[in-house]
Amino acid sequence: MTPFEVTILGCGSAKPTLRHHTTSQIICLKGIPYMIDCGEGTQVQLIRYKIHTGKLDHVFISHSHGDHCLGLVGLLSSLALDNRCNDLHLHVPSDLEQMLQAQIDFFVQHRNFDIHIHPIDCMQPTVVFKDNNVKVTAFPLEHRVPCYGFLFQELTGDRHIKPECIRQYGIPYDTIPSIQHEQDFTTANGQVIPNSELTTPPDPTRSYAYLSDTLVVPQYAELLQNVDLLYHDATYCADDEELAYKYYHATSKQAAEFAKACNARKLLLGHFSSRYKDENWLLEHATNVFPDTLLAEEGLTVAIGG
Amino acid sequence: MTPFEVTILGCGSAKPTLRHHTTSQIICLKGIPYMIDCGEGTQVQLIRYKIHTGKLDHVFISHSHGDHCLGLVGLLSSLALDNRCNDLHLHVPSDLEQMLQAQIDFFVQHRNFDIHIHPIDCMQPTVVFKDNNVKVTAFPLEHRVPCYGFLFQELTGDRHIKPECIRQYGIPYDTIPSIQHEQDFTTANGQVIPNSELTTPPDPTRSYAYLSDTLVVPQYAELLQNVDLLYHDATYCADDEELAYKYYHATSKQAAEFAKACNARKLLLGHFSSRYKDENWLLEHATNVFPDTLLAEEGLTVAIGG
Repeated sequence: MTPFEVTILGCGSAKPTLRHHTTSQIICLKGIPYMIDCGEGTQVQLIRYKIHTGKLDHVFISHSHGDHCLGLVGLLSSLALDNRCNDLHLHVPSDLEQMLQAQIDFFVQHRNFDIHIHPIDCMQPTVVFKDNNVKVTAFPLEHRVPCYGFLFQELTGDRHIKPECIRQYGIPYDTIPSIQHEQDFTTANGQVIPNSELTTPPDPTRSYAYLSDTLVVPQYAELLQNVDLLYHDATYCADDEELAYKYYHATSKQAAEFAKACNARKLLLGHFSSRYKDENWLLEHATNVFPDTLLAEEGLTVAIGG
Repeated sequence: MTPFEVTILGCGSAKPTLRHHTTSQIICLKGIPYMIDCGEGTQVQLIRYKIHTGKLDHVFISHSHGDHCLGLVGLLSSLALDNRCNDLHLHVPSDLEQMLQAQIDFFVQHRNFDIHIHPIDCMQPTVVFKDNNVKVTAFPLEHRVPCYGFLFQELTGDRHIKPECIRQYGIPYDTIPSIQHEQDFTTANGQVIPNSELTTPPDPTRSYAYLSDTLVVPQYAELLQNVDLLYHDATYCADDEELAYKYYHATSKQAAEFAKACNARKLLLGHFSSRYKDENWLLEHATNVFPDTLLAEEGLTVAIGG
């Protein structure tokens, strides 16, 4: 299967520390990177983990709090210095649009590429982006400002042609793509071979969900049913549930309960409060409920499904 | 003598690297920190080098390029989370004022301290700040946008009272401050002891000059005559003088020639281009002209005079 993975650039919360950067991560599918959130210092994290930005054309921002977007202007400035030419698309909550545009106009005047801001403003799960590989659905979370989760769903790939059929029926090379796209094949003597005989089904599709910052949102268990990898806000440990509620965040235990309700394959905890010296306590609370749980950390790459 | 020193938080140029952060530094005099410039990631550098922000009340920004100011909003946000209460004063070129205010209004709404922006807009060297310890003079540099250098001059301290005079003339404890401030002393039997007999002169004052980003500015050699420590833009090596001229920066050799013209005590080179893998070549070009030269690096603390 083609690689589909997430690399954590930052999984701290509002205040960066020496252990955790503010939030950013790279989703990579078939060699194409997509960024979610871009906290301060993200551009250096990209260098540190050797992630090239040449093919990075889409950035998704969950909400307008600084720890999720203050690295954008610096990143854009450095892309301009790198003489980037291809367009960049920023998918951001609509309340951030005007400020972001003003910052770009002020700080990133000199550049050879266009920046397109696509405002997100929806009350229900809504597809905000689709290319040949992936469909991205935004859905409103429950935080102190408008905030969106993102569901990345791999699109169904081509059917696999059986190598032995190519020889058996003398299928020309340039006909293979149409057969991969479900066409039947007509042999030189007029015999129609049905596609089902020539191919096997495409790889199963995989999915990734990002939910931060938010209270736990059980209403999305159906939308995220069977998700391969769930990244969830785990700012607090279960003992600090009142704080989580007060600040519109989740505990690691709540994240695990939600992962269970989603029948997720794997849970990745992140957005850790700077109050904890290490997060193993948070992990323990989660694995008691949902065993297949990991702690995010800077530089960690996790395969999505597969 | 009381400590007077500068700590480098970042000495890279426009693009941060794994070796150099964008520009920021802390001047510390008598335990009071003052910040010059605040590039992206400065708040983490403050944590890394254990610099407390409780007494940081004044930040001076040289110009509106992102690598000198994009860390401000994140720093202010974290100060707000730390429940800072005392006012913060930002001394910034006037062209940055409106954008900075807009960013603060958007990203740092919830805070318990006031932020005062003091626009700098002068054609000649102008005192922009003075407290009990130091006087700060801003002077326009030659860069692509309005940009200011800063001269930090320690104010003359108190005269030193001779311990033996306290005993000899029975000087009461609460009279000592007035004698330190040049008053004569009248003994119990009416004898007037002139101040010059009771005290020795105050410590010599020290000074620090910050010039970045800029072409070399020989017109300020007189203003900066005998400066104790000169921090100067050395973005390029002498071989790249044309690039330096094109982008309104200086070479390390030009910085050294200027330090010589200023009769500076020590030269500190910084704002290194990301094109150089190490800066020893820049240092060599400088020391050929001005031997007492240092390369800035993150975490380095240099005494000013003394």
